[in-house]
Amino acid sequence: MISKQQQKYVQSLHNKKYRTEYGKFLVEGEKGILEILNSGYEIENIFCTENFKAKVPVDTKFKTLNICKEEEIQAISTFKTNNSGVAIVNQKKQAIPSLVNENQLILILDDIKDPGNLGTIIRLADWYGITDIFCSQNTVEFYNPKVINSTMGSFIRVSVHYLELAPFIESLQIPILGAFLGGQNIHHLTMEKSFGLVIGSESHGISPEIEKLINTKITIPRVGLAESLNAAVATGIILDNIFRDI
Amino acid sequence: MISKQQQKYVQSLHNKKYRTEYGKFLVEGEKGILEILNSGYEIENIFCTENFKAKVPVDTKFKTLNICKEEEIQAISTFKTNNSGVAIVNQKKQAIPSLVNENQLILILDDIKDPGNLGTIIRLADWYGITDIFCSQNTVEFYNPKVINSTMGSFIRVSVHYLELAPFIESLQIPILGAFLGGQNIHHLTMEKSFGLVIGSESHGISPEIEKLINTKITIPRVGLAESLNAAVATGIILDNIFRDI
Repeated sequence: MISKQQQKYVQSLHNKKYRTEYGKFLVEGEKGILEILNSGYEIENIFCTENFKAKVPVDTKFKTLNICKEEEIQAISTFKTNNSGVAIVNQKKQAIPSLVNENQLILILDDIKDPGNLGTIIRLADWYGITDIFCSQNTVEFYNPKVINSTMGSFIRVSVHYLELAPFIESLQIPILGAFLGGQNIHHLTMEKSFGLVIGSESHGISPEIEKLINTKITIPRVGLAESLNAAVATGIILDNIFRDI
Repeated sequence: MISKQQQKYVQSLHNKKYRTEYGKFLVEGEKGILEILNSGYEIENIFCTENFKAKVPVDTKFKTLNICKEEEIQAISTFKTNNSGVAIVNQKKQAIPSLVNENQLILILDDIKDPGNLGTIIRLADWYGITDIFCSQNTVEFYNPKVINSTMGSFIRVSVHYLELAPFIESLQIPILGAFLGGQNIHHLTMEKSFGLVIGSESHGISPEIEKLINTKITIPRVGLAESLNAAVATGIILDNIFRDI
């Protein structure tokens, strides 16, 4: 059962304005909710189907599940189809880690706008053991339901920090690589022990202000005719090249 | 100006049923329409803003542009914001090329369901000079507006063929690689002259029927904890490894 008031409250969290105001966000679908049950995130409430309840491990700390009909879940979910559930979760203060350890890759995003791309990059970071991502203030919001969903659960292991990029990059005092068209072939890179990697926005690439701070422009070799690659795909290819000598 | 009847017709093409029935599809936004003007595709009609018209090269063959207000374009577009235009384009019979040339990579998709993923894989194919993609019948439709849009114009250079995968793969008589968790490290692959590469679906990977036809299971090495990678990202990383010796 879900009351009219609860329904309105959950639906308000589809919007960034109310997510920020209330300090909450939504985790939707089976995989996401099962992951969040075992994470450092505090859960306020879970609305789920009888069917989903059966999949929750018995030793789970969070006990209060509101059992709803599928239609009720569908009405509060941002998913096209959701027959599992929706969790309301407290946003977390993402503590900026002390920088820079030895042999560290600092992943930096300059205005990634597409939530699917940010989510996919978070999932990639998790694949490569990167626990922190540093973003420009104009990068899409971490708590956007599409971001959370496209991380496929990796959002619980990766922190995303929003800050003024230029002073942050200058403070790092390590070599900074940036993905461009027409830079050094990533297949022949020699890696420094610690370095930053900047990925630019889908439509404009790396901004002129940040370009000035790039020490090495790098490029994925092209055989065919496409003008560019998707930002998340490019990030994946570059990370695979960076981590191939490990 | 767009009539009520025209508006209804364009909106009907948001649905696969009518795209198939009429043999048409939509190309939306500035980049897509500028690309299609210089392609082998036949255009039926273009609805666009005065602003977009100014960007059409003077030597363009297709002359009849229906100038509309931005609100009118918005009403017929599948995009959240579209201030350029919508083109109605004839679907093309995608002729299956004669297989297999020497040194050819045959890219095969087994039930990719997400239109963004298929579009991104088409863009990737175009980046690597792959002109044909072979898909299972259950792979998402090529003419889906989200597929067309996420190719970023590459759909004009890449043909996508839908067929019964198992007999197709058997007919190839070349080694078949498949992306799995727990296969051979892609960093240490020795490539055959010609081979097929199978990418599985987002949720189920490669189906058991197709798995039987795989000669070499390959894997992207992982450092962290994510369970899997996005299908388009994985395709990108594998293609970069395949093409690194060229």
